[in-house]
Amino acid sequence: MIMSASTPITTPEAGIRSPASFIDHTLLRPQAGGGEIRRLCDEARHFGFASVCVPPLHVPLAAELLAGSPVRIGTVVGFPLGYTLPAVKVFEAEQLIRCGATELDMVISLAKVGEKNYSAIGAEIAAVVSAAKGVPVKAIIECCYLKDAEKALLTERVADSGAAFVKTSTGFGPGGAVVDDVRILVSAARGRIGVKAAGGIRSWEDCRRFLEAGASRIGTSNALRILEEWRKAMPG
Amino acid sequence: MIMSASTPITTPEAGIRSPASFIDHTLLRPQAGGGEIRRLCDEARHFGFASVCVPPLHVPLAAELLAGSPVRIGTVVGFPLGYTLPAVKVFEAEQLIRCGATELDMVISLAKVGEKNYSAIGAEIAAVVSAAKGVPVKAIIECCYLKDAEKALLTERVADSGAAFVKTSTGFGPGGAVVDDVRILVSAARGRIGVKAAGGIRSWEDCRRFLEAGASRIGTSNALRILEEWRKAMPG
Repeated sequence: MIMSASTPITTPEAGIRSPASFIDHTLLRPQAGGGEIRRLCDEARHFGFASVCVPPLHVPLAAELLAGSPVRIGTVVGFPLGYTLPAVKVFEAEQLIRCGATELDMVISLAKVGEKNYSAIGAEIAAVVSAAKGVPVKAIIECCYLKDAEKALLTERVADSGAAFVKTSTGFGPGGAVVDDVRILVSAARGRIGVKAAGGIRSWEDCRRFLEAGASRIGTSNALRILEEWRKAMPG
Repeated sequence: MIMSASTPITTPEAGIRSPASFIDHTLLRPQAGGGEIRRLCDEARHFGFASVCVPPLHVPLAAELLAGSPVRIGTVVGFPLGYTLPAVKVFEAEQLIRCGATELDMVISLAKVGEKNYSAIGAEIAAVVSAAKGVPVKAIIECCYLKDAEKALLTERVADSGAAFVKTSTGFGPGGAVVDDVRILVSAARGRIGVKAAGGIRSWEDCRRFLEAGASRIGTSNALRILEEWRKAMPG
């Protein structure tokens, strides 16, 4: 494996840095209750995940449980279909930050892609970024619905709009993260924003391929399994 | 077939009333653009469907296209996962009505079911009903995640909260409408509210079974096919 200067992770073959710091420890099932969120937050604190990613309803609980820890409180806006009104996405972002969210993963208006209305998409992201008052926004472009040229164009729009990351997928669409998509997003981002791969990432092998393709954040509901596999893959 | 006094439709065998007036002509794909919404609205007006059910983003267009027609403008709130904050569901309902919506299909907080917090679920529905200012609210309980006893208990809560309908499914979960579920909902509703069957209803045969089980509204993305099959099934 060739490690370039931009390789965002020290893999087991080359060092010992855990992938936990790249992982958003995610639980977005609609029926997940408070007990499951408590366990998720405990795990995130224990293993040092970058963040938890929880349903909006559970943000107050996660913020309470993770107060004083370095784990960030992630949640979702306009999720997962992206077709709520722009004013509702803005209001939702404001309310979630008031509840303690410190990262927001928002879904873009996919209907506007077919209409080639990229300026409306950019304006909506910018409005959410503005409402987020410095809290990093990740714009989910749901790659499974897009042509490659659209993925690149949208990534540029996302970067222009002040978001911190472009994210491949919601995990609720017909397709999840794909390595070739991550390469397109990383290339179009030109280092201006991070790339989050999410959707169907279930193993350390999956995770490693996305990190090698240039993803700087991984969203997964299988973080504990990934860490366990990473440990076993370590030399010695 | 035995027709009871409560049978909500005159089926082909017994008469000629079209099922169109029971159907919400639905298009909720995230990437659906304005052109598809225009066609949907034209069809709804032409065939006399009860309503269109469109993404929030397209409510202004649907309201413009259907102005002056009897077709109602339906849309969705907190859809499809139901875990947006209660204040966001209320704000979304207000905004959608301002944009011209005349029916709202909202998803309940499924996380509260596992926690047996039915009072929170009822309070949230009541808040949306209040914000809806007389516009009928259908509460989606997403039956595929529920035990039978929960379906009945939730239907009673929905009726108590002032909603106009209980609805089986979003169509985005792992399961859709089931005839036995409709029977449970109809029984628990005791005539106080209507029952809307939705999710995976693709044929006139499906539709007929749900109507016979007591559903008074059908949500489907296959309304034209259903009408066509109904016509062919008519005697003579």
